[in-house]
Formats: sequence, structure tokens, C-alpha cells
Amino acid sequence: MKALRLHKYGERPVVEDVAEPEIADPLDVIVRIGGAGLCRTDLHIIEGQWKEKSGVRLPYTLGHENAGWVHEVGSAVTNVAQGDAVIVHPLITCGLCRACRAGDDMHCAANLFPGISSNGGFAELLKTNARAVVKLASGVEPKDVAAHADAGLTAYHAVKKAAEVLYPGTTAVVIGAGGLGHIGIQSLKVLTAARVVVVDRLEGSLELARECGADDAILADGGEVEAVRERTDGLGAEAVLDFVGEGGALEDSIAMLHEGGTHYVIGYGGTLRVPAIDIISAEINFVGSLVGTYNDLAELMTLEAEGKVTLHTSTYPLDAANDAMDDLDAGRLHGRGILIP
Amino acid sequence: MKALRLHKYGERPVVEDVAEPEIADPLDVIVRIGGAGLCRTDLHIIEGQWKEKSGVRLPYTLGHENAGWVHEVGSAVTNVAQGDAVIVHPLITCGLCRACRAGDDMHCAANLFPGISSNGGFAELLKTNARAVVKLASGVEPKDVAAHADAGLTAYHAVKKAAEVLYPGTTAVVIGAGGLGHIGIQSLKVLTAARVVVVDRLEGSLELARECGADDAILADGGEVEAVRERTDGLGAEAVLDFVGEGGALEDSIAMLHEGGTHYVIGYGGTLRVPAIDIISAEINFVGSLVGTYNDLAELMTLEAEGKVTLHTSTYPLDAANDAMDDLDAGRLHGRGILIP
Amino acid sequence: MKALRLHKYGERPVVEDVAEPEIADPLDVIVRIGGAGLCRTDLHIIEGQWKEKSGVRLPYTLGHENAGWVHEVGSAVTNVAQGDAVIVHPLITCGLCRACRAGDDMHCAANLFPGISSNGGFAELLKTNARAVVKLASGVEPKDVAAHADAGLTAYHAVKKAAEVLYPGTTAVVIGAGGLGHIGIQSLKVLTAARVVVVDRLEGSLELARECGADDAILADGGEVEAVRERTDGLGAEAVLDFVGEGGALEDSIAMLHEGGTHYVIGYGGTLRVPAIDIISAEINFVGSLVGTYNDLAELMTLEAEGKVTLHTSTYPLDAANDAMDDLDAGRLHGRGILIP
Amino acid sequence: MKALRLHKYGERPVVEDVAEPEIADPLDVIVRIGGAGLCRTDLHIIEGQWKEKSGVRLPYTLGHENAGWVHEVGSAVTNVAQGDAVIVHPLITCGLCRACRAGDDMHCAANLFPGISSNGGFAELLKTNARAVVKLASGVEPKDVAAHADAGLTAYHAVKKAAEVLYPGTTAVVIGAGGLGHIGIQSLKVLTAARVVVVDRLEGSLELARECGADDAILADGGEVEAVRERTDGLGAEAVLDFVGEGGALEDSIAMLHEGGTHYVIGYGGTLRVPAIDIISAEINFVGSLVGTYNDLAELMTLEAEGKVTLHTSTYPLDAANDAMDDLDAGRLHGRGILIP
Repeated sequence: MKALRLHKYGERPVVEDVAEPEIADPLDVIVRIGGAGLCRTDLHIIEGQWKEKSGVRLPYTLGHENAGWVHEVGSAVTNVAQGDAVIVHPLITCGLCRACRAGDDMHCAANLFPGISSNGGFAELLKTNARAVVKLASGVEPKDVAAHADAGLTAYHAVKKAAEVLYPGTTAVVIGAGGLGHIGIQSLKVLTAARVVVVDRLEGSLELARECGADDAILADGGEVEAVRERTDGLGAEAVLDFVGEGGALEDSIAMLHEGGTHYVIGYGGTLRVPAIDIISAEINFVGSLVGTYNDLAELMTLEAEGKVTLHTSTYPLDAANDAMDDLDAGRLHGRGILIP
Repeated sequence: MKALRLHKYGERPVVEDVAEPEIADPLDVIVRIGGAGLCRTDLHIIEGQWKEKSGVRLPYTLGHENAGWVHEVGSAVTNVAQGDAVIVHPLITCGLCRACRAGDDMHCAANLFPGISSNGGFAELLKTNARAVVKLASGVEPKDVAAHADAGLTAYHAVKKAAEVLYPGTTAVVIGAGGLGHIGIQSLKVLTAARVVVVDRLEGSLELARECGADDAILADGGEVEAVRERTDGLGAEAVLDFVGEGGALEDSIAMLHEGGTHYVIGYGGTLRVPAIDIISAEINFVGSLVGTYNDLAELMTLEAEGKVTLHTSTYPLDAANDAMDDLDAGRLHGRGILIP
Repeated sequence: MKALRLHKYGERPVVEDVAEPEIADPLDVIVRIGGAGLCRTDLHIIEGQWKEKSGVRLPYTLGHENAGWVHEVGSAVTNVAQGDAVIVHPLITCGLCRACRAGDDMHCAANLFPGISSNGGFAELLKTNARAVVKLASGVEPKDVAAHADAGLTAYHAVKKAAEVLYPGTTAVVIGAGGLGHIGIQSLKVLTAARVVVVDRLEGSLELARECGADDAILADGGEVEAVRERTDGLGAEAVLDFVGEGGALEDSIAMLHEGGTHYVIGYGGTLRVPAIDIISAEINFVGSLVGTYNDLAELMTLEAEGKVTLHTSTYPLDAANDAMDDLDAGRLHGRGILIP
Repeated sequence: MKALRLHKYGERPVVEDVAEPEIADPLDVIVRIGGAGLCRTDLHIIEGQWKEKSGVRLPYTLGHENAGWVHEVGSAVTNVAQGDAVIVHPLITCGLCRACRAGDDMHCAANLFPGISSNGGFAELLKTNARAVVKLASGVEPKDVAAHADAGLTAYHAVKKAAEVLYPGTTAVVIGAGGLGHIGIQSLKVLTAARVVVVDRLEGSLELARECGADDAILADGGEVEAVRERTDGLGAEAVLDFVGEGGALEDSIAMLHEGGTHYVIGYGGTLRVPAIDIISAEINFVGSLVGTYNDLAELMTLEAEGKVTLHTSTYPLDAANDAMDDLDAGRLHGRGILIP
């Protein structure tokens, strides 16, 4: 089958022929890919940022944001059958460790992360397991929702954390209205009654933000901190969701916080730097957020099916993967890019 | 009356005669000081670290950790009467803003912080208000509990936050077994079933930690991160309470964290520096903690009265305040120093 | 001034001349009533249901749902001034007890409940205190929001409790779409992404429910339990908010519950009866809900000002109070009845 | 193999020879029983109380509180191996439904409850699955901990719910210091700093309660409600854990509650009856509690291994099962009865 494989850090991945995956464990599930989302993390992987954290051996297949149809199942699989349309939670989990037993899928002690630490879904077929597949409502096309598997899920998970502190009258700032942020905005509007203020460097993203329900959209031209302070009686925002994590976004986030407020770190690339006296004197918090749980993904698919959350995507054939990456890198890709094998 | 006043940043405060405080508001309460705790923050104030944050005008009276007896009350005070022994919550709060109405006293929109932003308790009399005084159980001496007003309260408040993630089988690391840490250790043992591991640079502090119930005490000699990892199957601690906040403690805390774990920032002086990719890939959190609420202080006084938490203190006459500060600075002060006017 | 006073349980209250209230405490606030909501509890008070619980001495003035303008303030009042438009939280609280310090206003150890345990707002003037008044946004008329002081607040407080268990894909059943229920429906839509199913005996109420955003509205004609089960794959609702509490509503609520679900008891009159084996084998919960906190009321006024929650009311002059009560009792009063002095 | 089987409701179960269970599913685990606890629920099953709820077909083997050694495993089992000493969580769960994915094992949509809805552990061998087995620390004997599988777990789970409202200074009342209650008392002392007051009808149980760390033990002779009120300044207890659920315990529990307090329903047999006006005017709660989660059981085994919680048991050979039941029914059985096959 065809797959987009990375052979060397710093070089472009290539589409080539590889062997099809095979069922080995009774809970294995093989999915025929209908669409696979392209993520800034794919660029970071190619750059080598994840080299040590993932420990993966090259070459391997990228793609951690997948949806499609069940192609084959192991002998103990009971929750899906061949032909079912499914979205794929990014992690293969064991179901038996403390974290899995607490519903905290991302911290499974024996997890695999296809597309990051093993072969992913920029291919015709993907091997995952029964614990990773969420059935789609009838009529939903895999390629239309694939980007929820990581971008949507990551945004939704962070919003669920933030929702705990967002009562009516509070302000949530979203930094970055791109692939993740535009789902974050919609999730905030659905799960909370807070005012949602969006900050982005691109006018086009601010327009998307407004379409997604943002109450206010501010251009990040150097005056964004002041602008947020003005809109909050000088007090700042109770929650800042930073979907960017580099290029000044971290510094902005801290500067926009209300006393007792929380900065949710979702995007990455930069470094958080803050004097301890500032953390304690304002009693602020920094909360990491990593993808999301299986139940988060199921909830998000409910919101999608109810029309309460909608993805903005652009599709590319798998063979054009490198074009898609160029577009993403250059800020030309509107919404999330989806590769179709 | 006598008071210890700071005239210039970088210079020693002096004991001198000042006018007695007077009742101006119906809710004012004037307390005759029985004992006032000396805090590393007093040294930081003198150094000028709080100059801008407090905005106080010099000269003024230091001392934010106070207990004594009610000396005089305003016309609308109903909860205490002259002669009552009380401990004084560090903040004078309004009782009417959102934060006060939510029990979040530290974020009162109109607070005064005697000893930091106005005249404090290194004096014969202190002016506070009805919302700040907690009556002591009969038989409890103000000077014996004064250090709970800030050191104990700050430790207890942080422990209450950490207790939410500490189920049986988890590990809590306490960095620094000094004036705050020794109450933190006892509070952890009372409120949770977690294993409590203490890290300190001084053997004497480790001994105090063991007396306070620490399950394990580790000398911070450069091998402390490795030692914590060894005791946690290489996984790290679910909670790290950093009562030091400088001199390598922040870096140690991060390095000791379990995936999904939380670093509670309580001590200060240094700077938190952590790449965003480390925050998100391990999904860790940094939680600021600032003193505590009125109800926290009342709970702590219950634990004190029940003998479940005990302070270690050394007393000095108010006139020897600078000797006490020298002892604190030089690591010669065992337990919390208490000034007696 | 004119006031509607109850002289004897079981008899109609009468409008008569009484002395105006006077400032006695530095925190007292006297409000000139702009509108006062009529509540089923007023009928229950007249029937004598609250005789022992309130312990009030007759005659006294009814009316616990009040809004108006500040008429006079005590010497220590800083948060409002004469002429300010305000809505009045139903309780006069002390601000000093454990409950007040935890933001749990309803359980103030020294509370007064004007209109229940002391003179209320079916009058020209009402005496309350500084801790009970919430300033209205400019342009908001007291009579248009008075019903939020109890009906709206009670519904909102219960919804906040229920919101904790209502994630996307869950179902919330609202029993009773009257004065409280219609705010409950709107609050559920604003604070959660759950499906909201409303059950009522009157077609008119179901219509109001749909206008308020209910996803489904079911006539309580004996088949309502079956209807809810059908709409939830036979599993029942995760939350049932019972705004009725008598005449079969309690039994219906229990029968509609999902395993692990929660029945919020808000309306009253009947008796909860359930075998312990049913409680434990399905692990269900019954949660009492009583009015709400000061901050709840402030949040609700934010939602009102943002147009996210809207009251349906009918006004009557104070002199027509008994007509309003007859209309309420007979089911002829649409929305909440407001008395204008 | 030998097994204790129930042939007809209302008649004594008999020990007889039955076929050994066999591995059918890749996740199946067969456990050789080391000890199986006898529970009041076994008596209730024989009486027929669970006939409809369980829907089990007679004859079948009783016993839902089991520990032993792994005898055989299915092909996909990775967490235990033959010979491992294990305690058995009472439910066989699917690991794939919403509840399992949220860590809420008791509400698995496809659960089996061996000993209640299928063949249990009063036998030489028990069939369960990989998701139900918790490995024992080395040196721990299965028969010594078997009673934690249900009695201990049920008590611990309820205490974890109650711990959320039990801060220092609050009171927890435990009704019934028997097989469940004596673990409840120890768990309360370990997880909270609340005062623990125990109420029981038997002097012997009160003695056990004191050994387990109860701060106060009160004979249920008709004056118990008054006694609890006296010890709480007339205000009642913030949490009442009712391990009895019949014979006046439910009525006592309600009467002992503090305003805003919660009654945890754990024991059963009787009926909860309470006027809605009492629920709302005091804003009290009734929370059902059913056994516990897998992680709860793992935590409890940590506490057991640390010596923080200790079971009191009496052993009987399996052939003497009916004698053990007679002793339990007659109040002659001290601690939990354990059957050894």
C-alpha cells in the first residue's frame, strides 16, 4: 500500500509502497483511511523536535489524525465490525493501567501513538486497537471529521479544563484561531457562558474566529495585551488558552491573566519563563493540555453530529502531502488540511 | 507605642515610638500583639523585592503574621469582644466583592495587607478588621500560634490544593522543611494518605521533617532528583510542593514530576523556566499558591487545637528583631522566629 | 407606607398602612420597591406550611423576590448609594460565619429571610443590608428583573449543580416549565450542551418551554416516564430537575433517572419515598437545592444583561395582590407575577 | 469441583460438585479461590430480594467477595500470570463503554456480577476477566484480604465520596460498625481530618469501632440522634454514612444531618422517606453508593499493605457455609466471615 514515510529528520517525507499492517493481537483493528489531518506537529516531527521524546526508528509513516472504515478486526473485538465508519483516537491504550482505569487515556503506561511513536495514518491502512475507535453517526463522512481526532480533540480537552473556571461574566482569551483554535472557540461557546476574545496575527483567522462565534477578535500587532486589559476593566482574563506556544504567545498569555487566572499551554515551540514571585503574588496557574480522552472524542462527535461544532478543512491527495505542508508552513492553509489516500 | 519600622529599602528597620492606631470604621478591630512571626518575606521586603507590588510608602511597620488579644472594636463588630484571644488573618478584606463572596479572601478587590502594604504587627498594637480575626480556643496562647497566620496558613492552603490529586499510593515531595515546610508535612499527613518525601539542604531540617511525620527525607546534595525517581519506580511524584522557589528548587521540582503531575509554587526568588513542549508532552501543571483563606486559617486552628499540627518556634523580644533576621538569613533560626513586643 | 400583611394562617393577607423601616445598623440598606415577584411559596406560607420552619410572628409583610432603588444606606455601606437600581438577594447575611466565608450565603448562621422570617417586599420600602444588593446594569428596570431574585436564582442555582454532570450527549429533564422552570431551561441551554427535555401538565407551558429553547417538550399525561425512557434508549436522564415536587412529580423524577443519575429536588409539597435497595443498586442521588448564592444572582444578572436569559412576567398593582394569587393558584398566571407598589 | 449453590429462593444453598469453569474469551482469567467473604447480601439473595434485579437463573453459585491465585488465563491477558496472588474486583467489565472509559466500573453497560448475576466464588474456582484482578503485594494471603473485595471496597468508595465535604472541624457519623463499617471508620481516619462518631446497637461493635479509631462511639438505644446533636452544638453532622439502611437507621441518618449535609446510603432493606420541604429548606442530599471502582480497590490494597487499614475476620470451611450464615444472621459473627474452599 501507499504511505508517506519519513526517512531522515530535516528531509521531506516521501510517498512509497509498504507492506500492509496485519492483525496480531485479539483486540487489533485495521482501519482503511478515509482522511488524515495534517498537523503542525508533523512539521515539528520532520524538524526533529520529537526525536528523543518519541524514540521512534526511521523510516516510519506519519499521520496521527485519522478516520476511515473498519477493514479487519481481531478475534476479541466486539465494539466495531468490518465496514463501520470510525474516527480513531490517537493513542492505542492498554485498558489495564491506573491511568486507563481512571479514564485518563493519554497517560496509559503502555501506550503507542501511531504517527508519532509508530506507523501512522498517512497511508491506505492504519493499525490501531478496539479501544481507539469511535463509531460515526450514520451519514458522517470520515474525511469530514478526521481533523477532530487530534486538532478538535486537543482543543476540546483544553476547553473542558478551562470551563471549570469560566462562569458568566468571565473572559476566555483564545490565542490562535487556526486548526485547533477554531474548534476551541466553538467549544467554549457551547460549554460555557464566558465572553470569548480571540487574538491572532492574521486578519483571515480573525474572520474565521468571528464566524465561529467569538465575541471579540483582536489583531496581534503588539497592542493585543493592552486590548485585552481594556476589555476586562484592566483586570485580565480568567482563562487564556494558548494554541500557539511560540513567537510571543506565551509572554502575551501571562500578561493577559487575571489575578488567580489560568494559562492553558496547548501550542508549543517556545519556553515559559516567569518569575516565581509573579506566580505567587497573583496566584496564577499554568496547565498543560495534551490531546484528550476517548470520552472527550466521543463527546466532540456528539457536538459535531448535533451541528454545534463544525470543522473548516481543505483536502489534498496523499501524493500532494508536501504541498500541503508547504501551505501550512506558509500560512496559506485555511482550516485544517486533510490528506486523502 | 513601640514599632519596628522600615525607613529605606536595603537598610535595617528600627524600633521606634509611633502613634497608636485608632478605630475609624465600624468594622475595625485593634489587636494587642502577643507574638508576631518573622518571615523570609520580611527580608525580601527590606531588600526591595516587594517595592512595586506593594506600592507602600516608607516608613512603615513590618509584620504580617500576628496574634494577640482584642484591644478595641468598632461599633458594628459582633464576632469578637475586648480581651478575646485571636489570630489575625493577614488580609483586611471588604466582604462585598466577587472574590470575598466566593470565599477567596486573598483576591479581595479592595484588600489591605498589613505588614506588606500598610502598617503591620511588629508593634504593640495592630489595626485590622472584624473579617480578619479568628478566635482562639481557650488555653491557646497567641505567641504559640502566631506563625500559623502566614507560615502555617500558606503551607496548609497549598496542601489543600495538592490533596485533590493525592490518593493512596501517590507521592508528595516537599522541598524545604523550614517555617512553612514543617507545617506542610504535617498537613499532608493529616489530609492525605500519600507518601511524603522531604528534600532539604540541611540535615537539621531533615530531622525536623522526620519528627513531623515525613515518610522519607533526602539531603539536597545534587542527587535529590535521582533519589526521588528511584523511590517512585522512575516515574516521579504526583505533587511537588516547592516551599523554596530559588537556588535550584524550581528546576528540581520540574525534574521530579510524574506525568500529569503538578508543581505547587509557594516559595519565590527564582524564575520558572520550562519549554512548552515539556509542559504539553507530559501534561504537567504549575499552580501558584498565595497565603490562604479565612476558613483555611480556622481549619488549621482546629488541627492545632486537636494536636494534629504543631509549630516549632523560637522567640525574640521585639527589640532584638534584627538579631532574629540575622539568624533567619544565616540558617541559624530553628522553626519560626516569633517577636514579642 | 402600604404593605401586604398576613394576619392569620389560612386567611388572605391585606394591604394596609405600616411604619416605614429605619436604618439601625451601619450596613443596613433600605430599598424602594420597583417590583416584587409572587411565588408559590407565598401561597404555602399563607397555608401555614412554613409556620414552624420560619418561626415568624404574625402579622408581617410577605414578598421575598424584590428589586428597586436604594432609598437610604447605613454609615458603613460602600457598595451602593442612594438612587442605585438594585436587585435584592433574598437573604440578609452576616458575612462572618463559616458558610458566609465559603460563599454559601443560604446557610449563613445568622440569616434573616425578609418575606419569610421577617418583613418582606410587598410594600413600598424594604429593609435589607449591603451584602444583599446587586447593582443593575444601566437601563435595566427593577420590575423587569425582580423575579430573578428568587425564581430565577433558584432555577439557576439548581442548574449550576446539575451542570457538573451534564456533558454533551447527556439528557436533562425539567419537570415543570413555570416561573422557575422557564429560567431553568434557558440556564441549562446556556451552561451545558445537554439535551433538555421538558415535562409539564399544561400545553401552554410546553409552548413556553419550546420558546425557551427546550429540545423536546412532553405532556405529563401519564405517559411521560415512558416518553423520556424512549428518548434515552431506555436508559433515562442523567439529571432530573424537579421544579414541582408534588402531585406525582417526585415519583416521575425517580422513574426517569439514568443509572448513576441525580434527581434535583427544588419544588416541594410532596414526599420523597424510595427503597434503599433502589438507591444503591442504581447508585442514584437526591440533591436538595435552596435558592442560591449572591454570586449566583450576580451571574444571572450578567446573563440577563447579555440577553441570554429572559423572564416572562405579568404585572399587577400591589392592591391586586389577592387577584394575582388567585391567578397563580388557578394556573391562569403566565410567567411570573410581579406586584408593583 | 465443590461449589455452594442456591437452588431455590427461601431455601438453604448446598455444597455440591459442579463442572470447572473454562477459558472462553482471550481476556478470561480463572482464579483458584483462597477465601471468599460472606455478605449480608448473600442472605438477601437467598431471601429473594435480588431476584428481579439480578435476573439470574437458579441454580447458581453464590460468593461475590473473592481472592486467590491465578489458575489459568486467556490468550490476550498480559497483566497477571498463573500463580499470581490476586484479589478480585466484584464486576466483570467490558472496558469499552462510556462508564468503563470514565473509570466508573460499577456502571459498565455490559457487566457481569459473579455471585449475584452469574456463578460466584463460594467454590474452588471462579471465572472472571483480566480487568477484575488486582495483584497482591508479596506476602499478603488471599484469605486475609478477600473481604476487601466487597465489604472493604464498598466502605472505601462511600468514604471517598464523603471525604469531599469533610474538612477539619466537621463530623462524620458512621451508622453500623460491622463488616463494612469497621473499614469505613479506618478509611475516614486515613482520608480525612474529620471527627468520626460511630453509632451501633451492639456494645461489641462500639468496642471494635474504638479500636478502629473512632473518636466517639454511641449506643443506638433510642437516644443516638440526641447524642449526635449534643456533640455537634445542636447542628448535626456534615456527613452520615449509613451502612445499615433498615430498622430505623435511615430515619436516624436524616435526623442527624447538618444543614447542607449529606446522607450516604450504603446499607439497604428499608425505605427512605422524607418530605421535599425538609430536603430543600435544609438543602440536604442523599447519595447512593454501590461497591466501588477498580482503582478504589487498588488504593485500598495499598492502604492494607501499608498497615493503615486492617480487616477483622473469622474463617469457616466452605462446607460450613450455612453455619456461617446462621452466625451472621444472629449477630454472632465478629468481623467479616470468610469461607475457605
